[in-house]
Amino acid sequence: MGDLINRFRKSARARTGYLGALAVFFGLAAIFPFGKAATAPATEGAKFVFKWFSPFTDPAYQMWEKVGLLAILIVAICGLLYALMLARQVSRAPDGTPRMQAVAAAVREGANAYLRTQFKKIGPLIIVLTVVLFFTSDWRNYPQFGFGRAGAFLIGSLFSWTVGFIGMRLATRGNLKVAAAARSSYGEAMQIGYRTGTITGMLTDGLGLLGGTTIFLIFGEHAYEALLGFGFGGTLLALFMRVGGGIYTKAADVGADLVGKIEKDIPEDDPRNAATIADNVGDNVGDCAGMAADIFESYEVTIVAAMILGLASFGHKGVIFPLLVRGIGVLGSIISTYTVKAGANDTSDTALKSVHRGFWIGSMISVVGFFALGFFYLRFNGVLGTGADIARFPGLDVNNLGVWANFGIQGLDLRPAWTCLIGVMLAIVLNKLTSYYTHTTYAPVKSLAKACQTGHATNIIQGFAVGYESTVMNVLVIAFAIVLSVLVYAGTPPVFVAYGVAMTGIGMLTLTGNTISMDVFGPVADNANGIGEMGYDKAEMEAESPGSYARARQILADLDAVGNTTKAETKGIAIGSAVIAAFSLFSSFIAVIATGSEANIGTMSQLQYDTHAAMLTVAQPMVLIGLLIGGAIPFLFSSMLIRAVGRAAGQIVRECRIQFRDPEIWAGTKKPNYARVVDICTNTAQRELIGPALLAILSPLFVGFLLGPYAMGGFLAGLILVGQLLAVFMANAGGAWDNAKKMIEDGNYGGKGSEAHKAAVTGDTVGDPLKDTAGPALNPMIKVMNMVSLLGLTVVMRFTLRPVEGEPHVISGLIGAGVCLAIIVWAVVTSKKEAPDLVGDDR
Amino acid sequence: MGDLINRFRKSARARTGYLGALAVFFGLAAIFPFGKAATAPATEGAKFVFKWFSPFTDPAYQMWEKVGLLAILIVAICGLLYALMLARQVSRAPDGTPRMQAVAAAVREGANAYLRTQFKKIGPLIIVLTVVLFFTSDWRNYPQFGFGRAGAFLIGSLFSWTVGFIGMRLATRGNLKVAAAARSSYGEAMQIGYRTGTITGMLTDGLGLLGGTTIFLIFGEHAYEALLGFGFGGTLLALFMRVGGGIYTKAADVGADLVGKIEKDIPEDDPRNAATIADNVGDNVGDCAGMAADIFESYEVTIVAAMILGLASFGHKGVIFPLLVRGIGVLGSIISTYTVKAGANDTSDTALKSVHRGFWIGSMISVVGFFALGFFYLRFNGVLGTGADIARFPGLDVNNLGVWANFGIQGLDLRPAWTCLIGVMLAIVLNKLTSYYTHTTYAPVKSLAKACQTGHATNIIQGFAVGYESTVMNVLVIAFAIVLSVLVYAGTPPVFVAYGVAMTGIGMLTLTGNTISMDVFGPVADNANGIGEMGYDKAEMEAESPGSYARARQILADLDAVGNTTKAETKGIAIGSAVIAAFSLFSSFIAVIATGSEANIGTMSQLQYDTHAAMLTVAQPMVLIGLLIGGAIPFLFSSMLIRAVGRAAGQIVRECRIQFRDPEIWAGTKKPNYARVVDICTNTAQRELIGPALLAILSPLFVGFLLGPYAMGGFLAGLILVGQLLAVFMANAGGAWDNAKKMIEDGNYGGKGSEAHKAAVTGDTVGDPLKDTAGPALNPMIKVMNMVSLLGLTVVMRFTLRPVEGEPHVISGLIGAGVCLAIIVWAVVTSKKEAPDLVGDDR
Repeated sequence: MGDLINRFRKSARARTGYLGALAVFFGLAAIFPFGKAATAPATEGAKFVFKWFSPFTDPAYQMWEKVGLLAILIVAICGLLYALMLARQVSRAPDGTPRMQAVAAAVREGANAYLRTQFKKIGPLIIVLTVVLFFTSDWRNYPQFGFGRAGAFLIGSLFSWTVGFIGMRLATRGNLKVAAAARSSYGEAMQIGYRTGTITGMLTDGLGLLGGTTIFLIFGEHAYEALLGFGFGGTLLALFMRVGGGIYTKAADVGADLVGKIEKDIPEDDPRNAATIADNVGDNVGDCAGMAADIFESYEVTIVAAMILGLASFGHKGVIFPLLVRGIGVLGSIISTYTVKAGANDTSDTALKSVHRGFWIGSMISVVGFFALGFFYLRFNGVLGTGADIARFPGLDVNNLGVWANFGIQGLDLRPAWTCLIGVMLAIVLNKLTSYYTHTTYAPVKSLAKACQTGHATNIIQGFAVGYESTVMNVLVIAFAIVLSVLVYAGTPPVFVAYGVAMTGIGMLTLTGNTISMDVFGPVADNANGIGEMGYDKAEMEAESPGSYARARQILADLDAVGNTTKAETKGIAIGSAVIAAFSLFSSFIAVIATGSEANIGTMSQLQYDTHAAMLTVAQPMVLIGLLIGGAIPFLFSSMLIRAVGRAAGQIVRECRIQFRDPEIWAGTKKPNYARVVDICTNTAQRELIGPALLAILSPLFVGFLLGPYAMGGFLAGLILVGQLLAVFMANAGGAWDNAKKMIEDGNYGGKGSEAHKAAVTGDTVGDPLKDTAGPALNPMIKVMNMVSLLGLTVVMRFTLRPVEGEPHVISGLIGAGVCLAIIVWAVVTSKKEAPDLVGDDR
Repeated sequence: MGDLINRFRKSARARTGYLGALAVFFGLAAIFPFGKAATAPATEGAKFVFKWFSPFTDPAYQMWEKVGLLAILIVAICGLLYALMLARQVSRAPDGTPRMQAVAAAVREGANAYLRTQFKKIGPLIIVLTVVLFFTSDWRNYPQFGFGRAGAFLIGSLFSWTVGFIGMRLATRGNLKVAAAARSSYGEAMQIGYRTGTITGMLTDGLGLLGGTTIFLIFGEHAYEALLGFGFGGTLLALFMRVGGGIYTKAADVGADLVGKIEKDIPEDDPRNAATIADNVGDNVGDCAGMAADIFESYEVTIVAAMILGLASFGHKGVIFPLLVRGIGVLGSIISTYTVKAGANDTSDTALKSVHRGFWIGSMISVVGFFALGFFYLRFNGVLGTGADIARFPGLDVNNLGVWANFGIQGLDLRPAWTCLIGVMLAIVLNKLTSYYTHTTYAPVKSLAKACQTGHATNIIQGFAVGYESTVMNVLVIAFAIVLSVLVYAGTPPVFVAYGVAMTGIGMLTLTGNTISMDVFGPVADNANGIGEMGYDKAEMEAESPGSYARARQILADLDAVGNTTKAETKGIAIGSAVIAAFSLFSSFIAVIATGSEANIGTMSQLQYDTHAAMLTVAQPMVLIGLLIGGAIPFLFSSMLIRAVGRAAGQIVRECRIQFRDPEIWAGTKKPNYARVVDICTNTAQRELIGPALLAILSPLFVGFLLGPYAMGGFLAGLILVGQLLAVFMANAGGAWDNAKKMIEDGNYGGKGSEAHKAAVTGDTVGDPLKDTAGPALNPMIKVMNMVSLLGLTVVMRFTLRPVEGEPHVISGLIGAGVCLAIIVWAVVTSKKEAPDLVGDDR
C-alpha cells in the first residue's frame, strides 16, 4: 500500500514535470518566433479597436436584442433557481433508517473523496493550461483576447467540474431518499429519483447558457476568442471525469466480482467484500459525474460551434438565435420535467411512459417556441448583421427563399429554425434507435438472451452482430440528418451549411434538462436498489406491515429497470451530439487555416475558404495518411482504457485478498476497511487517466507538426468517423448484453443460476468496460481533439514541417512532432503494462 | 430437408430474377441515353485508331522491350511448370492406409462438391456480368474494348476460381500425404505440406502474370480497358469464395461443436457426429480456396493498378517495369520455395525458421533483381514513353533527381524500384507484426492465456484490448509505408505519387508464391492432423514399431502449430495489400471523374486532375456523408456475415440432432449420413453469400446515384479506413484467442479441462467467425467496391442526382438509387433473420 502511494506520488510528480515542460514549450513557441515567417499571421490581420460589452454599445444591436440577451440571462438564472427549488424538495424527503443512512454515507464519502482528489490533481494542470491558452490567442495585439480565452477556459472547466460534482453529490443523497420513499409509494420514489436527475440537468442548462451568453455580452463579435477557451475547458474536464470515472467504476466492479463472486463464491454486495462500497461509489463517479460533465460539455461545444459559425454567416443574429433557442429549451425543460410523475401504485411501464411524455412535451414547447421566436427575429431585409458583410458571399440571397423557409414573407429566413427541428427529431430518433438495440422488448436483446442458451461464445458473437449493426444504423441516421440540414442550406456558401449543421446540434440538445434527468435517474435508481439490498431491515419492515419488504424491493427493482432504459437511451444523444459538434467545428478549422489566424475569421472571403477547403481532399496523400492515423486513434484509446481497467481491478483484487485473510472479516464480525479500497480506486483512476488524456491532447498536434494542417483535417475526419462507429458499437453491444442478462434473471431461459445465466453474466462483464469506460470516453475524446486542433492550429501552422505555404519549418516541426511523439509513446508503453498477476502467490 | 431444398431453389430462382433485372437495368442504362447530356462523355474523347497487339508494332517499343515482354510470358509459364513439377512430386508420395484414405476421400468429395455447386450457381451471374461489363466500356466507339473488358472479366474470374479450386483439390490430397509421411519423417511431412502450398502459390503467380502480360500485349496503351475487367473478375470470384467459404467453414465448425461438444458432450471429430466431415471440408473451402482466390485477386488488382497508373505516368515503361518486377518475383519464389526443407528429426522451431529463411532468400533475390533491371531499364532521357506526354505534367523533371534515385546517372530513375523495396519491407514488417500479436511466444497471446484464469469475460476483454491495439499498429505501419513512398515521389504530380503507392503494392506481393505456400500450409497441416486423429491405426502402428504412433502424432501436432503461425502471418499481407491497392486505385477513380470516361484517361491534364481531386475534400458535406456511409459498410457487412454463420450453423445442428436420434448412429454401429450435412453446408453457404455480395456490389452505386461521384470518393475513403481497421482487429483478436487456447492446451494454467481452458475455448469460438469469416471477407469486399466504383463511375456520372457538372438527372438518379437501395434493404432484412431456435422441440 505504502509502495503504491509512493509510486503514485512519483508518477504525479513526473506528470507535473511533463506538463511544466509542455507549458514551457508552448510558452516559448508563442513568445519567441524562431520559425520563418513566424510573425506573419499575427500581423496580417487588419487591426481593429476592441470594445468591451459591444452588444450594449454597438448601434447595430437593436434595443430589443439587448433586452432579449438579458432575458436569456434571466432564463438561465431561472433554470438554476429551478434546480435549487428541486434540490430543496429532494432534501426535505425522509432519509430512511440509520442503517440505510450508514450505507449511503459510506458511498457519499467515497464519491466526494474521489472528486476532491481529482480536483486537487487536475488543479495544477488547469492552471498551467490557463496560461498556455493565453498564449494561443493573438495576445500580442489584443491582450483582452488572451485574458478572455484563459478566463473562459478556467470558468468552462470549473462549470464542467461543478456540474459533475454537484450532480454526483445530489445523486448520492437522492439514492437514499428514493430507497426511503420506496417503502411507501412507487410514485414518490420515482419522482424523487427523476428530480434528483433534473437538478443536474437544470444546472447544466443554466450554467451552459449563462456562460455562453455572458461571453457574448462581454466580447460581442469577438466572442470566438473566449468561446474556444470555454468549450475547451468544459471538454477537457469532461474527458478527465469520463475517463477517470469510467476506469473507477469498472475497476471497482470487475475487482469486486473477481475477488468476491469468482474467487470466494460470495454474492454481489456481500458486506464482507472490501470492494463493495467502492463498487457503489463507482456507479456515482462514472455514471453521474462523468455523464453530467460529458453532456454539459456537448451543450457547451454545440453552442460554441453555433455562435462561431453564426457570426461568420448571419452576423450577430446568427449568434443570438441559438442563444434564444437554448433559452426556450430551458423553459421547455423546466415545464416538462415538472410534469413527470407516477402514481403510488404504478409500474415501470407507466413510469417510462411518463418520462417519455415529458420529453415529448418539452420538444413541442421548444419547437413551437423557436419557430415563433424565429418568425419575429430572423428578418434580414438585405443585410446579414454586424459581423458579416453580404458581399463576401456571392451567390447568397437570403431575400429569395422558398415558402417553406420564409412563410411567404420577404426577408424572413426560418432556415435556422428548420435545422433546429431536424436536431430535435434526430434526438428522438436516436433515443428510439438506442432503445431498440438495448431494451429487452425488442428483437436484438431477445436474440442475445436466446444465444445464451448455447453458451458464452454464442452470446458474445451475437453481441458483435447486434452491436455492429446498431452502429451502422446510428451513423446512417446521423448522416441522414446532416444531409437534411445541408439540403436546407442547399446552394449557400459552406459557412452557412456548417451553421445549419451546428444548429442541428443545438436542436439535438435543446432538451438537455430532460436528457440529463433521464440519464442520472439511472445510477440513482441503481444505487437506491443497492441501498435497499444492504440497508433495508426485513424483519422490522415485515413487523410493521407484512409484505412491505417485498413490495418496496419490487418498486426499487422496477425503478432500476426504468433507469437502465432511460440511461441507455441518452447515450445515443451524447455520442450523436459529439459527431454533429465535431462536424460543424470542422468549418471553423478550415476558416482558421484559410485566414491564418482565428482573429481574421470574420473577414474571410469565400474564395479563401474554398481554396483551403479544396486542399483537404482525400486525393491528397497527406490528408489520407491523416485520415488513417485519425481513424486508428479511437481504437488505441479504447485499448488503453480497457487495459487500464484491468490493471486497476488487479490492485483492488490484491487489497481485498489481503483483507479476506483476516479471519474476523471473513467471519463477518469485523467491518472490512472499505476506505482503503476506495482510496486505491481513487488513486489508480487518477493515474490511469493520464495516458489516454495525453494521447487525446497530443496526437492531433503530432500530426499537425509532422504532416501539416491539412493532414490534421484528415485526422479529424478519420477520428470522427471511427470514433463514432466504435463508440456506438461498444455502448450498444454493452447495453444489450446487460439487458440480456436482466432478461434471463427475470426467469427466461432457465433464470438465475442456469448455464444460460452464466453465459449472460459473461456477456455483461465483457460489455461493462466497453459501455461504461471506453465507449462513453470516446465522446469527450473526439471533442477534446477537435478543440486542441482548433486551438493549436495557429501554432502548428507557424512551426510545422509542411506549412500551408512557404518553406517547411524543419527544426521546429521536428521538435514539436518529436516532443509530442515521445510523450505519446511513453503513454502507450505505460498503458501496455499488463495487470499484476491476478492469480498470484498472495492468494 | 426437402422443404429446405425447395426454399433454396426458390431463393436461387429469385436471385437469378434479381440479377436479370440488374442486367437489364444496366443494359438499358448503357444503350438508351435517356438522361440529359447522356452521350456527352462518350463523344468528348478524342477519336483514335485502335490497333491490336500494338506493343509489337508500335515503333515506340524497342526490340528488347518486346523480347522482355515475351520473357515475362515465359517466366509466367515457368512458374506454372514449376507448379506442375511439384504437383507430380507430391502426387508420388505415399497415400497411407486405406482407413486414412477413406477419411481424406470423404473430405475431398465434400470440398469438390462445394466448389462445383458454387461454380454452377455463380456461373449464370458471371455470364450476366460479362454482358454488363461489355456495356460499361466505351463500346459504341470501340467495340474492341467492350469485348476486351468482358473477355478479361471472364478470364479473370475463371483464373481466380481455378486457383481456388486447384489449390483446394491439391490441399485435400496433400493432407493425406502429409499424414502418411509423418509416420516416418518430420522433414518429409513438412516438405510435402509446404510444397502443396507452393503449387497453389505458383499457380497464382503464373496465372496472374500471364493474364496481365497477355492483356498488355493485346491492348497496349489501352490495356486499362481490359485490365479493369480482369481485376473485377478475380475480385468478385474471390469475394464469393471468401464469403461462401468463410460461412461454410465456421457454420460447420460451430454447428459441429454445438451439437457435439455442448449438447451431447462427445469429443471433437467424434465419428458419430454427422457434422465431422463437413467441419473438415470447411477448413479446405475456407482456408485454401478462399485464401488462394483472395491473394490471387490482390495480385491481380495490384498489377492492374500499377499498369494503369504506370501508363498514365511513365508511359509504357511504367507498365512494363511492374511486369518485370513480378517476373523477378516469380523466379525468386521458385528458387526460394525450393530451399524450404526440414530434417527428419527437426522441431517446429527449425521448420518455422526454414520457412522464414525461404522468404528472406526470395526477398533478397527480388530486391537485387528489380534494382538491377531498373538500372538498365528505367532510363528516360527527357521523354516518358508512348503513353504519356511530359508537357501534361508541368513541374515534373525526371532528369534532375537525387543521387539516391539515379545513382548519379543522368536520365536514370530508380524511384519505381525504391517504392518496390518499400513494399517488400512492408510485407516483412506486417508479417512480424501479425506474428507478434498472434503467436504464443509474445506478450499479447500470453496475456490472453493468463486472463483465462479469471474467466470467460476477462479473456474476451483482453482480446479486445489486444485486437484493438494490433489494428492500430498495423494501420500505422501501412501509413508509414505510404508516407515513405509518397516522399520518394515528393514534388511530382499526383499520378506519379499514386504510381509509387501502386508499386509498393507490387513490392508487397512480389513473393506471392512464398506467401501462399505459407498460407496453404496451415490448413493442410491442420487437416493432416485431423486425418492422423481419425485415420491412424494406433494398434497397428505400435505393433510395427513401439512409440511410432505417439511420434507421428507429435509431428503432426508440431506441423499444425507451424501452419497456424505461417497462415496467421500472411493475413497481414492480404489485408495490407488490399489497402495499398485501394489507395492506388483511388487515383484512377479521380482520373475517370476528371476526364469523364476512362477512355480519355491518357489525355488528362494535371489541371483537370487537380480540379476534380479538390472536390473530394472532406470539407464538402456530401463527401463527408459518403465517408460516414462508407465507414459504416464494413460494420454492416461483418454483422451480416456473423449472423449468416449463426443461421447456417442452426441448420446443421438440426440435421445432426435428427441423425443422433437414430440409436444405431448413436451407438456407433452405423455410419452417419455425412453427405447430407455437407449438402446443407454447401447450399446454405451459397444462399447466405448473396446478401453480403449484393451489399458489396450495390452500395457504392447507391451512393453514386444519390449523392454523386464525389460522395462515392468519400465513400471509398471511409470504406478503406474502417474496413482495414476492422479486418485486422477481427483477424488478430481471433488469432490471438486461438493461440491462447493452444497455449493452455499445451499445459499452461491448468491445461485441458481446467476452468481456464473453458474460458480459452470461449475466446476461440468467439474469434472463429471473426477471423475466418468476417475479417478475411472484408479484404475482397474493399476491392470489389473499389472496382465497382471504377467500373460504374461512367454510368453513375451520366445518371446521378448530383452530377459533376450540369443539371441533376433527377429521374434516372432516383431510379438508380432506388433500385440499389431496395435490393440492399432486402439483403439486410433477410440477413437480420435470426437462426432457427437452436434449442427447439426437435432436440
